[in-house]
This record gives sequence, C-alpha cells and structure tokens, in this order.
Amino acid sequence: MDELDMKGAFDAVRASSPLVHSITNYVTVNDCANALLAIGASPIMSDEPEDVVDITSICAGLVLNIGTLNARTVAGMHAAAAQSASLGHSIVLDPVGAGASKLRTRTAAQLLDAYPICIVRGNMSEVKALAGGAALTRGVDVCPADAVTEDNVKTSAAFARDFAAQTTCVVAITGAIDLVSDAQRTFAIRNGSALQGRITGAGCMLSCITGAFAAAHATDPLLAAVAAVASMGVAGDVAQARMGADDGNASFRTYLIDALYNLDGAHLAARARIEEVAGLAPNATVDGERA
Amino acid sequence: MDELDMKGAFDAVRASSPLVHSITNYVTVNDCANALLAIGASPIMSDEPEDVVDITSICAGLVLNIGTLNARTVAGMHAAAAQSASLGHSIVLDPVGAGASKLRTRTAAQLLDAYPICIVRGNMSEVKALAGGAALTRGVDVCPADAVTEDNVKTSAAFARDFAAQTTCVVAITGAIDLVSDAQRTFAIRNGSALQGRITGAGCMLSCITGAFAAAHATDPLLAAVAAVASMGVAGDVAQARMGADDGNASFRTYLIDALYNLDGAHLAARARIEEVAGLAPNATVDGERA
Amino acid sequence: MDELDMKGAFDAVRASSPLVHSITNYVTVNDCANALLAIGASPIMSDEPEDVVDITSICAGLVLNIGTLNARTVAGMHAAAAQSASLGHSIVLDPVGAGASKLRTRTAAQLLDAYPICIVRGNMSEVKALAGGAALTRGVDVCPADAVTEDNVKTSAAFARDFAAQTTCVVAITGAIDLVSDAQRTFAIRNGSALQGRITGAGCMLSCITGAFAAAHATDPLLAAVAAVASMGVAGDVAQARMGADDGNASFRTYLIDALYNLDGAHLAARARIEEVAGLAPNATVDGERA
Repeated sequence: MDELDMKGAFDAVRASSPLVHSITNYVTVNDCANALLAIGASPIMSDEPEDVVDITSICAGLVLNIGTLNARTVAGMHAAAAQSASLGHSIVLDPVGAGASKLRTRTAAQLLDAYPICIVRGNMSEVKALAGGAALTRGVDVCPADAVTEDNVKTSAAFARDFAAQTTCVVAITGAIDLVSDAQRTFAIRNGSALQGRITGAGCMLSCITGAFAAAHATDPLLAAVAAVASMGVAGDVAQARMGADDGNASFRTYLIDALYNLDGAHLAARARIEEVAGLAPNATVDGERA
Repeated sequence: MDELDMKGAFDAVRASSPLVHSITNYVTVNDCANALLAIGASPIMSDEPEDVVDITSICAGLVLNIGTLNARTVAGMHAAAAQSASLGHSIVLDPVGAGASKLRTRTAAQLLDAYPICIVRGNMSEVKALAGGAALTRGVDVCPADAVTEDNVKTSAAFARDFAAQTTCVVAITGAIDLVSDAQRTFAIRNGSALQGRITGAGCMLSCITGAFAAAHATDPLLAAVAAVASMGVAGDVAQARMGADDGNASFRTYLIDALYNLDGAHLAARARIEEVAGLAPNATVDGERA
Repeated sequence: MDELDMKGAFDAVRASSPLVHSITNYVTVNDCANALLAIGASPIMSDEPEDVVDITSICAGLVLNIGTLNARTVAGMHAAAAQSASLGHSIVLDPVGAGASKLRTRTAAQLLDAYPICIVRGNMSEVKALAGGAALTRGVDVCPADAVTEDNVKTSAAFARDFAAQTTCVVAITGAIDLVSDAQRTFAIRNGSALQGRITGAGCMLSCITGAFAAAHATDPLLAAVAAVASMGVAGDVAQARMGADDGNASFRTYLIDALYNLDGAHLAARARIEEVAGLAPNATVDGERA
C-alpha cells in the first residue's frame, strides 16, 4: 500500500502559492480568505457574472461553495466554472446545505453534472443529498444519523467510494472521522477537534484550502484532498491543545487559522493519522457492520 | 413579583439546540453564526427568495435583521416570514438603522405590520423610529439623546411598555441599561460592558441569540428576551474582566463570544442583574423624571 | 520642510468621531467596521441604491471599495458618491483588484472620473492599472515586479506624484514602503509588518480609516492620508511585537485592530517613520535609480 507523501503535498502549496478564486458564502468568507493565506496561498473572491471570467483566468484553481447562494451568484458560479474548465483549472465543489433546500440540492447537482469538478468536499448529509439519497438534513450541519463513526466507517467508506466512482470526482466527506476516496483508494483521517463543529466555517475553510492543494497538485486530486483534510485535522488538534479555561469557540477559530499558518510539511506528515480503508476494492460489497 | 427563571431559560436552549434561520447583514454575519453556536444553537443563513421557504421550514425560529438590506433580501425576508408565521415559528426583528433611511424605516415597519413578530430587538433610536417618533439617528448607533440612563430609565421603560402594547410584541431596547417589556411587565437589565458599543455586531449577535431563546421558549417570549439580553450582558461582564493591557475591541469581540460559549444557566442566574421596573402598570403615567 | 502634525491629525479623529459610510466588499467588511470603531469613528455599511443616498447624507465621509463588486453595488457606489459630492463630503476610493478584471478597472476609472475623489488608496499594481499602465496583476495582491522597495522608491514616488497631479487626488500607495502624494509633496512611510500581507483586509481597513481621517480633515487630504497610513503602519509594528510562538495570521489580525484601538496621537507621532521624498518637485525628472 503506497503511502501518500504529506510533506511533499504540503510543501508544494507553500512553494507554488496558488491564487485561488472562491465563490463562497458571505458567512465565512473572511475566514476562508485568512485560511488560504495561512497555508501560503492567495485568495480572491468575485461572484459577479461579468467579473468572474477575468478573475478566474488569472487564478490556478476555483472553489464553488453554495452557502447563501442567490440567482446572481449561481450564474457567476456557472460562468466561472465554464472558464475554469476550459483552462484546465482544478475545481472544488462544496455543496453547503444540499438536502436542506431544493435550490441548493439542484444547484449543487447541476454544477457537478456540468463541469469537471475534481473534488467534492462536504459532510455526509450533503453528499448523500447530492447522491440523490436520504433527505435527512440539519441545515448546514450533518444529521446525527448520517455521522461517520467507528461503527459505520466501512459502510460509509463504501458509500464514498461509490459516490466517487459514479461522479468520477474525488470525494472528501468530513466529520469526526474524515473519508476521502477516488473510487480506487479510500482513506480515513482521524485528526481534528470536536470544536470544529462549534465554529462556523471549518468546512468552508477546508474546501478553500482543498482548492489550493488541488491547484498545486492538478494531476493528483486524491493526494490534494487527503493532504488538505489532514492539514485541517492536524490544525484542529493543535488548536484544541491551545485552549485555555476562558477560551471558547471564538478563540478556537483564531487558533485554528493560526495552526494552519504555523503548519509545515514535516509537522503534517508526523501528526496526520491517515489510514487506507481495507477491503474496499471497487465494487466489493461491505457488510457485517452496523450502518 | 415573580422572578424569571434564568437558569431554566438558558439550559433549555442548550438542551434543545434550536436551528435558527437568520437573514442578516453581511457586516456581522460571521459573529452572529458563532454566537449562535456559542450558546448551543445551530445557525443557518439564507436570503434568496427561492431558498428561504425551504430553509426556514426546517428551522425552529427566524431572525430578520435589516442591516445592509437590499431589494432581493427584503423579498427574502417577506417570503421567509410568511412561511415561518404559517408554521408558528418565533420571529425576531432587528430594525438596524431604522430612522437612518426611509427604506430601512419602511421595511422594518412593514415587516412588523405584516407578520406576527414575537420580539423586536433594537437600540432606543431604532425603536423610536419604528414607533413613528423622533427622526434622531446616528446611523446604526443610538443617538446620545436617546440613550437609556438612570436619569430617564422610568420614562424609557414606559415607552418600551407602550411600544409593546401598541405592537403586541415583546420589545428589547438595549444599551447601557437594557429594557425588556411585554406591556404587562417591564424589566431593566444592568449587565454588560461599554466595549459592546466599540465592536460591530454586539446588537446583531444579541438579536440572533434572542431568536434561539425565542425558539426554545415559543410560548414565553418575555422570558426568552430577558434571558437573551441578560446572557449577552453577563457575557459582556465576563469579557470585560478578561481584558488585558494590550487588548482592544478585536480581543473583546473574541472574549465576548467565548464568554457566551462558557456561560451556563447557573452562572447566568447568579450574575444577571434583572429588576422589574415598578409603577409601570399598563397605562400608568410616568412623571417626575427628567426625560 | 514642514512636518505633518500626526498627533493633531489622530486626536481630531477621536475627538470628532466621524460617521463613515462604506460600500465595501463582503470579505473584509467586519474588520473594516471594527477598525473604524477602533480609531474612534463610527461605521455604517449600505450598498443598495435606494438606501445609500439617505445613509450617506447623515455621514461625514464615504469609502468606495470595489472588491466583490456587482452591478447593484456599483450603482449604489455611483448614487452614494453623487450625493456625497453634492454635500461636500470626503470620498476615498480603494480600487481593489483593478487590473485583475476589465470590470474592476473600468469601474474604478469611472468612479475616479465622475466624482471628486479626495484620496485613492491601493497597492502599486492597482494604482498602475488605474493610471492606464501595466496590466500586471496578482489578483488583489501587488505584483512582485510592482512592489515598492528601497531600490525603486524614488521612481515609485515620482509615479505617485504624477498620478496625483493627473487625477488631482491624493494617492496612497501602500506596501512594504508606503507612498503618499498630493503632487506637491510626496512622503514615504516605513512602518508596518510583513504580516499585513498575510491577512485579508489590511488594505481595506486602511482605506476605511483613511475615510475617517479624511472626514476629520476635510481641507487637508494629504495630512489625512499620511496620518491614516502611518496609523496602520504603527499598529502593524505594535501587532508584530505582540506575536507569540503559537500565533499566526489570525492572531495578528486581532492584534492589529487592538493596536489601532490602543493607539493615541502622541504614540503615533513618536513611532511614525515619515520622510518627505526629496527631489520630487512637480515635473522634476527622476533618474539614476533602478526601476
């Protein structure tokens, strides 16, 4: 089983400093920009259809995040994605709240169908909604029944594998246990803090830095997605360890971005807890697990 | 005089973890989301008319904040409020900048007229503008002449009482001294720090957590509003006490949200300084005070 | 050579507490509001064409920042600028990303042409794009080839001088070395931290506080711009000195706003490193320097 080179994956982002175009929600956009800067990338945000084609053309990657979408920004996403695809840029899709509204589910599905998305990053409820599955949702949070746990990790990994196969994307399903699959190989990443669920933007930031990793590793989106997920997880571990008695979720947010800023490839490689999920050859059946 | 059960009011929010839909300005929206998460609620933001009906339907409460309003988001507010009302959800209105522009004053008044708003949360200038009164304004800040002080607290409380009676809402008028009234009973809350006026978003965050309290106490909006106001006030006290020599308003913002995160019902009950304003039976005349 | 009175310039902002209307991008708007509050001004944000005329009328100054512009907000900028100009308010323009897209370059140029902008604040790439010059761009960051360094400071200062003469604006070109010119006099300011380039919003915050200084010094935009730039630079120095081993760009952001909050006129005067660039009489030719 080949090990993924986390050190090389991270160092390449710092070395190439990709300019990443994000069309993202206004709730967490500031944190997204600072997270991109923290890992050594450069952010630019633009969502106006007339503006996005020029902007995405000078970038190395594109991130589409459908939180707080509206008709104008959805048009901007389509225009940017078409241009980005024509230039061969890496495109990451974050289907925020897919399943929570028809507009979100449909928009995410249309973007996924129409453009060569290289990585989909969401929680299990969102990815299930995108797969045409369960309508369970808790807004932008994962529905508890969908959460990936040690009890259902193999079944969940098989779902990730099948979603990746069906869409020909790499999929990164994140939560207490993160899963990343390109259909051929599926990894579980066990880093991170429960506090990441008590701040807004942990997922959005992850999707944006995934865009930076994807831009730096255009031919290896699986490596890019695993390294991005592991980076955020290790940053979560570091931030958690820094929490003092008076600290709460606002301090955690600061510490999380600070930890991304201070992360380096060697540190990431040493602390990332990445495991390939066994017995998940394409089309292998998974059973014997409580799903 | 019945005491309001602050411990029970707070613990119910943590226990029920209400999903709150906010249509709010883009200046402070990130802080609003983190404040909701801090008190144990879950935030979701959506303002597109096509999206809001589905989104608000899966929520337990709705917050309408008219800061940075535009024609599209105002349409979103109406669509969400209509659906939320039809589902019996609690709706909180924050008339940010009412009195500062005709559009804001009119929008707030129309929302208040058209839907069963359960709590209006604003500063005195905004609530006066909504009452059709003084055009004094200092943008989104209270006009100094309108500020509630010990010298005018009884007259101000009578105004709050009358506004509540006229609108059949609970009103929460916040500032150095906070006033909450449902026309039958009027409370003054004397917690908080002057630094809350030196950050953006203290009022917006309060309106959003008021939405969470209202969702958790759907049949008792007076309790919800007093508990929300007191929670933010006690958090302000805690944040103030944490300020170091190099700290400024940015650190205070972090400490304020952290304090909400670390607050619990017992702590709130012990530190809240809530007093029912005497002599404010409905229609009682208040005089002998310098207003 | 007259010295500029930094203490008086700063103290006047605190004393007058100008209400500043900003039409700005949603990426950094929260930091902009907190930075304005930090220096003692009051922020209000509004971008809807129907709203902006009323809002800007109660303000003392206007800041136009074209990041994340869209057709509606550009219309809002024009409506606000026309009203602000008719009232004699000071208007500051931040051409975020000019050169990175045709829409941004054109919008910035049109605003500059149509209204009596008193100060333009941008990085060298943006100002060059606005001057009709080099199309080099790195999104919203300065292109390395455009950065002002000790090797090209005199040539860069001559460019600033000529831009100021051509536009009859004061121009503030900020980076590792900041340049401010009104065509008659040109100053270099050498404060600040490299970390200001590793957070989003350092430039946007500077533009907004420049709006506050311009409002407080309506007849002396050169003084206003130098004092604003120096204030942010000294705040950057203070924030840099506060950085601990675990801190990263998120903590730096907090420290930067905190430093603005704790700044006073005497401190600014003592620490600002402001130097008039010699040999830059209007139309004097600069040579002998590697540009």
